[in-house]
Amino acid sequence: MWLRNCWYVIAWDHEIPAAGSPTLFSRTVLGEPILVLRKESGGFAALEDRCCHRLAPLSIGRREGDCVRCGYHGLKFDAAGQCVDAPGIPVIPEKARVRTYPLALKNRWLFVWMGDPAKADPQLLPDNFSCEDPAWKHKPGYLHYDTPYLLVCDNLLDFSHLSYVHEKTLGGTTAIAQARPEIERVDGPGMAGVKVTRRVGGVPVPPYYRRMRSFPDGQLLDRWFIYEFLLPGTLLMHSGGRPVDDAPDDLRNAVRLHSCQTLTPESEASTHYFFQQSHPADQGDDALTEGIYQSLVTAFNEDRDMITAQHRNIQRNPQAPMLPLPIDGALVQFRRLLAQQAAAESPQ
Amino acid sequence: MWLRNCWYVIAWDHEIPAAGSPTLFSRTVLGEPILVLRKESGGFAALEDRCCHRLAPLSIGRREGDCVRCGYHGLKFDAAGQCVDAPGIPVIPEKARVRTYPLALKNRWLFVWMGDPAKADPQLLPDNFSCEDPAWKHKPGYLHYDTPYLLVCDNLLDFSHLSYVHEKTLGGTTAIAQARPEIERVDGPGMAGVKVTRRVGGVPVPPYYRRMRSFPDGQLLDRWFIYEFLLPGTLLMHSGGRPVDDAPDDLRNAVRLHSCQTLTPESEASTHYFFQQSHPADQGDDALTEGIYQSLVTAFNEDRDMITAQHRNIQRNPQAPMLPLPIDGALVQFRRLLAQQAAAESPQ
Amino acid sequence: MWLRNCWYVIAWDHEIPAAGSPTLFSRTVLGEPILVLRKESGGFAALEDRCCHRLAPLSIGRREGDCVRCGYHGLKFDAAGQCVDAPGIPVIPEKARVRTYPLALKNRWLFVWMGDPAKADPQLLPDNFSCEDPAWKHKPGYLHYDTPYLLVCDNLLDFSHLSYVHEKTLGGTTAIAQARPEIERVDGPGMAGVKVTRRVGGVPVPPYYRRMRSFPDGQLLDRWFIYEFLLPGTLLMHSGGRPVDDAPDDLRNAVRLHSCQTLTPESEASTHYFFQQSHPADQGDDALTEGIYQSLVTAFNEDRDMITAQHRNIQRNPQAPMLPLPIDGALVQFRRLLAQQAAAESPQ
Repeated sequence: MWLRNCWYVIAWDHEIPAAGSPTLFSRTVLGEPILVLRKESGGFAALEDRCCHRLAPLSIGRREGDCVRCGYHGLKFDAAGQCVDAPGIPVIPEKARVRTYPLALKNRWLFVWMGDPAKADPQLLPDNFSCEDPAWKHKPGYLHYDTPYLLVCDNLLDFSHLSYVHEKTLGGTTAIAQARPEIERVDGPGMAGVKVTRRVGGVPVPPYYRRMRSFPDGQLLDRWFIYEFLLPGTLLMHSGGRPVDDAPDDLRNAVRLHSCQTLTPESEASTHYFFQQSHPADQGDDALTEGIYQSLVTAFNEDRDMITAQHRNIQRNPQAPMLPLPIDGALVQFRRLLAQQAAAESPQ
Repeated sequence: MWLRNCWYVIAWDHEIPAAGSPTLFSRTVLGEPILVLRKESGGFAALEDRCCHRLAPLSIGRREGDCVRCGYHGLKFDAAGQCVDAPGIPVIPEKARVRTYPLALKNRWLFVWMGDPAKADPQLLPDNFSCEDPAWKHKPGYLHYDTPYLLVCDNLLDFSHLSYVHEKTLGGTTAIAQARPEIERVDGPGMAGVKVTRRVGGVPVPPYYRRMRSFPDGQLLDRWFIYEFLLPGTLLMHSGGRPVDDAPDDLRNAVRLHSCQTLTPESEASTHYFFQQSHPADQGDDALTEGIYQSLVTAFNEDRDMITAQHRNIQRNPQAPMLPLPIDGALVQFRRLLAQQAAAESPQ
Repeated sequence: MWLRNCWYVIAWDHEIPAAGSPTLFSRTVLGEPILVLRKESGGFAALEDRCCHRLAPLSIGRREGDCVRCGYHGLKFDAAGQCVDAPGIPVIPEKARVRTYPLALKNRWLFVWMGDPAKADPQLLPDNFSCEDPAWKHKPGYLHYDTPYLLVCDNLLDFSHLSYVHEKTLGGTTAIAQARPEIERVDGPGMAGVKVTRRVGGVPVPPYYRRMRSFPDGQLLDRWFIYEFLLPGTLLMHSGGRPVDDAPDDLRNAVRLHSCQTLTPESEASTHYFFQQSHPADQGDDALTEGIYQSLVTAFNEDRDMITAQHRNIQRNPQAPMLPLPIDGALVQFRRLLAQQAAAESPQ
């Protein structure tokens, strides 16, 4: 079950080769191979990575200006997908063209629109501000999953797993799983989803917090994880911690982080995962930026191991039912929302 | 086609980690992943290796006493399969439980019952006595097959293959294939199957026999292979050889061996194989025990190579018919018996 | 879609072990595993590589004279496929036999007939003369494809790909793709197919031509590629080049080559490819023969990379339509011819 009329991240902008580079970039989204070109004029173009003639991937052809020439029989397509040269063919048929996809670049995430191009509205892009804001610093990350994207959504919708999957990394305390999150519906233009607020009171200072702020020995913090998880699969999170004796609105001694993470289905059984966690640019140095990145990679590999094992168990017996529990509130709401929008896209 | 109301070996007892060990043991039987715990009280427990909540394998969680805690969201199950702790959930639903399976330990084989627990009767366990008898010595073996279990049953039901598959190892003479075995029906409580008696007269002494008995040069033996092959897939065999001039009931100069082998379907296309061949404890030393084990491993790899090639041929053309021959008597009877019991388990 | 009533190359004759060799040769054609024996009398025999008893491959058994004995239970089959010995079975059933296949050796290609044996007519063999002609020299080649054979046929039916796939090897100029080939129907006994004539005027001398002939610096040539592509998948090609000022029928200063290439489906998704390109025996030395062979291997690996990528794209979305273009004339005719003959073989 996939939505089509929505924006999916296809790449970090730095992944797309320069306009002058001979290297061609291709990534598969919703089962469709897509070639992404950086145009000489500075924008981007996304073409179906499949020549209309004999279906060879254009990405193993060659770039010629803002065009790409198929490496099999030499058909050349412009950035609008139209075939503009075909060796040995005097009159090129109108139908000799490949599909193109609307693209939008926002804060270093390059989004592709997989549905009706007429509906591609940049107003629907999520607010991944910390990916490109001088006040914030991060190192961008990417992981590939060999599991369906919904299983990864489930994971991000229930942070109680931090206490177990990430017991020795991000989590460290069962207090996270014990805390009851508040779950709200998010319902706005381009922001349908759920908002999860999880507060954990009176816990020790995590070691890397001390690289942003100094705290007395034995200081206890009130920590928070407040995120929106928006269709089709984007997490936007404020998290942080504040000395327990400070007033709730007093952030002078608080640590604050912002994270943007998003999931894009590659195929029915594989997923792209783009992520970052940002710290304030004026708190912490490059070593902290790298350290946060490395700890995310370590933790997200823990998630991937768990979800891959879960997926194997599901494949072994696809009929085995899951048992809904109160901790599943956010993921149940999200799956319902997804099902509603998918049904709205494909009315029977 | 699998029987469910019967005992399958899931492990040698030494494979199951000690009660104090953090290591968790899991093996799949009839397509169901099963976690086996050695309890602190000394017995065993077998739980469905799939959390009832989101289907993650419990075996990648952690042991807590006689309980196991899921590594995803922290649900904790006791040895009876009941969820006894769930972080963030004040009242645990009654339905939060995983399936358990009856187990029985007999002579170092740990058996699991895959069908109706009410029918799990230890009287139905096969008599694998030589796996744990001070009068006999062996080294236990295990092999994994990527073929359906019935193809391995077929192999064990017709020893004429010893002359060809094991020409240079166990077999060595076409006399084995030439001999006509006597085939009888075994029909008793927990012992439905066939009994195969194959006698081979006047053949040379196999080299390793001389490590149990001394024989004059040129001594000829009458050899025998007498085994029951019982549902669902257990071979219990007496074999040996006696100087040709000794009376049939005079075993004073005979070599005697006993072998226990059993097959457990892992999935439709893969199989667990547990085996040993025992020699009298007072005949032969540890080097003989090891030598017998090594020659079994060598020979059973020959079988596996052959059966795997046979299986590939069957997969290439699943419609190709087999041609029944007189030498297939035992396997035809066994397959018929299996089909009857399977039909009795699942009446239409 | 496969034809059955036709000859397929199963091997170069040198691939089949000598009559005295214990090595057994097996290759799968149209999904059927086939064992090929060189008989002591000098001919060949082709047997289904699948024992009629339990379907084990005969090729992992052993050769006994012109017979082969199954390595599982010892059934022995003669070169006519009849079981002539079965240990422990006094009277061998008439039905204990494996299928045999008509074979024909012509110019070092060993052909197998997969359809009705009564229709196997050596008159239908293609004229691969340069594979065994003292006037021509070549080194024989073989490649395995993990793609359907029709995709490789398509490739050979449109040489415009030489300009792109082989830009840096065989091709080198877009003039090949620009040239319009003449396409004719070939319709004779055992030679149904298409004839493609592609002439490229006034192009430079390819470097290896100079190893057969000396040419002045700056000499331009008129080149030609004239081939028949015959059902089920055989290319027979004359190619060469002549100084532009020589008369069309004056070949005194011309370079001439002859190539035989043929495709045999292994399975729905894999293909055998046998090939050679010959040069006149009196023009060029062994280093040229080897050089031509190596450049074919390099180029055919370029084809295989492209076709494999094309095949993956097709598998990703089997419904994606191809767009017929004027350059597809030969392949469209060939596919139509194949469909007609396939329909004639299997009337509904």
